[in-house]
Order: sequence, then C-alpha cells, then structure tokens
Amino acid sequence: MSDAINDLIDNFTKGNIRALARLISKIENEDDEKDEILKRLYGKTGNAFVLGITGSPGAGKSSLVDRITAFLRKKGDTVGIIAVDPTSPFTGGALLGDRIRMQDHALDKGVYIRSMGTRGSLGGLARSTKEVVKVLDAFGYRWVIVETVGVGQAELDIMNVADTTMVVLTPGAGDSIQTIKAGIMEIADVFAVNKCDLPGADRVVSEISQMLDLSKEITEWRPPVVKVSTLDDRGMDELMEVLEKHRAYLNDSGNMEVYRDEMARKETLEIVDYRWQRIVNHQLNYQGHVRDILDKVTDKKTDPFTAADEILGYILRNSGLLDNSGEKV
Amino acid sequence: MSDAINDLIDNFTKGNIRALARLISKIENEDDEKDEILKRLYGKTGNAFVLGITGSPGAGKSSLVDRITAFLRKKGDTVGIIAVDPTSPFTGGALLGDRIRMQDHALDKGVYIRSMGTRGSLGGLARSTKEVVKVLDAFGYRWVIVETVGVGQAELDIMNVADTTMVVLTPGAGDSIQTIKAGIMEIADVFAVNKCDLPGADRVVSEISQMLDLSKEITEWRPPVVKVSTLDDRGMDELMEVLEKHRAYLNDSGNMEVYRDEMARKETLEIVDYRWQRIVNHQLNYQGHVRDILDKVTDKKTDPFTAADEILGYILRNSGLLDNSGEKV
Repeated sequence: MSDAINDLIDNFTKGNIRALARLISKIENEDDEKDEILKRLYGKTGNAFVLGITGSPGAGKSSLVDRITAFLRKKGDTVGIIAVDPTSPFTGGALLGDRIRMQDHALDKGVYIRSMGTRGSLGGLARSTKEVVKVLDAFGYRWVIVETVGVGQAELDIMNVADTTMVVLTPGAGDSIQTIKAGIMEIADVFAVNKCDLPGADRVVSEISQMLDLSKEITEWRPPVVKVSTLDDRGMDELMEVLEKHRAYLNDSGNMEVYRDEMARKETLEIVDYRWQRIVNHQLNYQGHVRDILDKVTDKKTDPFTAADEILGYILRNSGLLDNSGEKV
Repeated sequence: MSDAINDLIDNFTKGNIRALARLISKIENEDDEKDEILKRLYGKTGNAFVLGITGSPGAGKSSLVDRITAFLRKKGDTVGIIAVDPTSPFTGGALLGDRIRMQDHALDKGVYIRSMGTRGSLGGLARSTKEVVKVLDAFGYRWVIVETVGVGQAELDIMNVADTTMVVLTPGAGDSIQTIKAGIMEIADVFAVNKCDLPGADRVVSEISQMLDLSKEITEWRPPVVKVSTLDDRGMDELMEVLEKHRAYLNDSGNMEVYRDEMARKETLEIVDYRWQRIVNHQLNYQGHVRDILDKVTDKKTDPFTAADEILGYILRNSGLLDNSGEKV
C-alpha cells in the first residue's frame, strides 16, 4: 500500500472529512488500491444503521431525507447521506439540487452528503454504493441514509444494502400503488405517504393496507404506513418512532445478524466472481492461447462446449502465473 | 451419451419432428445431456437465416409472423418459429393463441412452431432461446423466426440471436415512437408499421425517419420503414424484398460473418462462465472449506477481500477434483 493511501487512512481515522471525501473518490474511480482501502476499513464497519429510501421521482424523497436528518441530529446522531441517481452521469460531490435542499446541514460537521451517478454499468453503481456505505460506516456515522430515484431493478439492487427500506409514495395522480412496480411491496419495511395534506392521502394508505393484506408472505413485521408532510413536520415523530421500532425488531429477532451475515457472504462471493472475470479478461487481452481456442470455434473446427472446456482447463492450470496483483493465487 | 439420446439424434437427423420436439424439451428442461446434445448438433448449424421480431403488445407481431411464413412457404422455404413470452410461465408446445393464429400452418410439415416462457431467470430464457434457434437451424429450417413480446432488456438480449431484427409499430394511441423504449432504434434493421390502414400510419413513418436522421451512428445500412397490413397483405411484397435485401447486405458486406463469429466467441465465453459458476456452487454445496472461509468473514475474523483471495486460490488449486462431468478439467 502506498504511503499516500496510508496517510489518507490515518487522517480518515482521526475524523478528517477531506480524507473521507478523497477515499470515497478513490472507491468511485476504481482506484488500483481500492481493494486495499476497503480491506483496511473493513474492521471498523458494522456499527452504522443503514436506511434506504426509494420511491417515484417527485415523491419528495430528498425533503424527507432532510427532515429525517434534522430529527436525528436533534438527538445527537451523526448522519452520512448517499444520494444515488442511476440515470445521472454526475458523481463526486453533491449535486446543486441536493446542496440547496440540504443547505441547513451544509455547515453541520455531523452530516456528510454525497451524490453518486452511473459511471459505468448499473451493476457497478450498486457495487460502489455498497462500498461507499462501508466507508461512511467506518468513518463513524451512526446512520447512513441511501436515497435513490425511481424503482427499477437497479434501485432494488441498491436497496439491498439497507437494514431498513422505506418506500415513499404521494397522493399525486399516477402514483396510485397500482402503478408502482412489482418488487416494491417485498422490499418495503416502512411506507411513508408524503404530502399528506393533498387530497387522496387516505386512499393511498388504504390501498397499501389492502395490498399488504393480500400479500402471501407472512412475517412478524408488517410494514407500517405513516402519513407525513415535510412542510410542517406532520407525522415526523411517528415516522422516527417506526424507524426505531424496525431497528429494534431487527436486533431483537436476530434478523439483523442473519441479514448482515448473508450480505457479507454474498459480497465475498461477488469479489471471487469479479476476480475470476479479471483473470479471464487478462487471458483474452494478453495471452494468445485462449484466442487461438476461440478461433477454432469461429473456424468451425470445434464446438463452443469443447472449446469452453479447453479454455476453462487452460485458465485453471495457468492462473497461478496470471494474478496481476502480484500475489500467487 | 445415453443410447436414448443417440436414438433421438439419429431420428432428428432423419427429419423426425417428434425427435425435434423432444430434443427441444430436453434443452428447455436443462437436461443433464443438454451440452452433449448441442455439441452433437453444432456442426449442422449456421445455415438458417434468423429473423427476430419485436414490438409492443398488440402491434400484431403474431399475425405478421403468420403472413411472413405464408410468403416464405410460397417460395418453398421451410420455417421454424419460436414465440417467446418472457412474462409467461408457459412453455413446451404452442400456446392456444398461437395455435389459433397459426392454424393455416398446423398441417404444414415445412413449418414448426414452439412457444417459450420463463422457466427460471430471464437470463436463462435468453440462453435457451439461443439454444433452441440452434436446434431448429440444425434440423434444416431455412428460416428461424423469433418473436418476442415487448421491448424490455430481456427482449433486447433475446434479439441478439437474430441476423435481421424487425421492430413492429402501429399507429395506435400510445405507440408513438417517442414512447418506445430506448435501445430499439439501435437494434432495428427493419421497421414494419403494421395496421397501416389506421389513421396516423404516415405520421409514425415520418417519426421513425426523423429519429433515424438524428441518429448519431452512421452505417451503410439505413433501416427501411415499410407500411403493412396483415388483413389484406398490403406491403407484404415490399417487406419480403426488404428482408432479402438486408440478408444480401449482411452477406455481401461480410457483416454476417463478423457478427456470427462474434456471437460464437461470446457464446463460448458464456459457457466458460457458466461452468465456473457450477464449480463455485459445487464447492459451496458440497465442500466444507469454502464455507469455513465464509464463516471467517461473518465472524469478522477476516475481511471479504482476503477471504475472496483464499476462496479463489483454493478453487483454482482444487478444481481438477471437482468437475462433475467426470472429466478432469
């Protein structure tokens, strides 16, 4: 590990915000030392509570994050916030919109805000988000809030990092829960019906309840539905209570541990897979033999199955020579 | 390879439709001998021309497939048809709707129709579709037509198998091309505006043209837009000409070969990946050591990166013992 990174991590450990920001940028930019950084920080993780917030565009998610943050700060909790927009190529630092909305917290050292967009693939975004959550956790924030726009598959993947997932709905037209994508009912631990001063809020609440009644999956936790208004903090006390309740439920039931263990296993296997892909790509880019085997397929001298066996065998036999981190794998 | 499969392939080679149907079922059901079957058939593939047809539900894709089939039969070409519905759990044999629509061809031995739905993952469906195309190709059909509902990511993946991709639009409300998902413009080689007797057909045609004008990607082939009506075969002659033209273009430009070589390479690497996943899953399910390493992560005795290196190293060193096909890899 380079001296520069060592210094950064030292400063990070002392609570230096600038070091935090620079380490996050290195993660996002897929820095060569990214794995080393995450390895070093791993021992410090596991203490933050991760809240995921999703819902349709315009549902007022950012305002809700702002109010939740204010309530958490009031009781002294620190908050790290990641605003994820899978449709945006912007990343690295807060977007203007977030800055304006979150300006109450701009000078508060107990709050850190970061926006993330798509650099490469959507799958890559879900991975970086997970990694940045770890960094904020290691830095010592009591809460990490991940806010994401929309409810597509990418957002569902991102929400996997959350201990508690909150889905935000509004009584606005077209936001009837019947128009909400499948998959949401299963991931929501808490529903917030925002802009509850608008007509139709009660209808949204009863639609959610009906859907929950029809839901086949029976668990001990039935997702509560809370009406809120970020304009006058109506319902905010109740919402904060519900969040604490879910956290207590996860802890008491042992589900938190089960869930986090499952996540850690999954994460490890994802890294195995990622490294395997790197070995294969290395072979394709720098070694002639795998290309020769592929040529036999395109020349119809062999079939893809026989060729795949040959390639797999070749890589397994030769992979010890190929690890580009310098370590013998 | 079992005697039963040997017999099936013998009968398949003799042109027995029942053997064809049974081999396809084995592919769809992920039969243990699936790879062997595909290996045996591979040498006979590469002669069919693969036409992919996609578009919104209700655009009249099935009727169009029916008419195209009739036109191809008129000049003596045989046709294998795969109707893919990613939202349907039905598979194995034609759906009732297809049967009714395609009844003209029911007694025609030069036409074979098969419906496929999702058995497992959408990724799995794209893979099986590709494999069934190969089987129909090996059986000797001159044309293989793959029809799929809708234009989501799954459908785009499925359309990868096609030499020519046709996108079907209609002048119906909400089917303005502005509502058509991104990704379509790039995959379409030919546009068919169906139900061209309805008002608004010309507007759809000019919208497509405008979009093509704005398209940044310049290639020698500009996707033609053909107005058709399956009710009275209006435009069908022109459509068939356009399809032949695109086929000739692919052959003459050398693009067909480039494309098919690229597909064969991709397919081979997908099989490598699939086998690797099987090795990892085998380790997880039957070997204690990988589980022990994962336990060290959940017990916080190590981090996911160090554990991933250990797992990868272990699998690479021991994979020769693990190949469950019996062959030493």
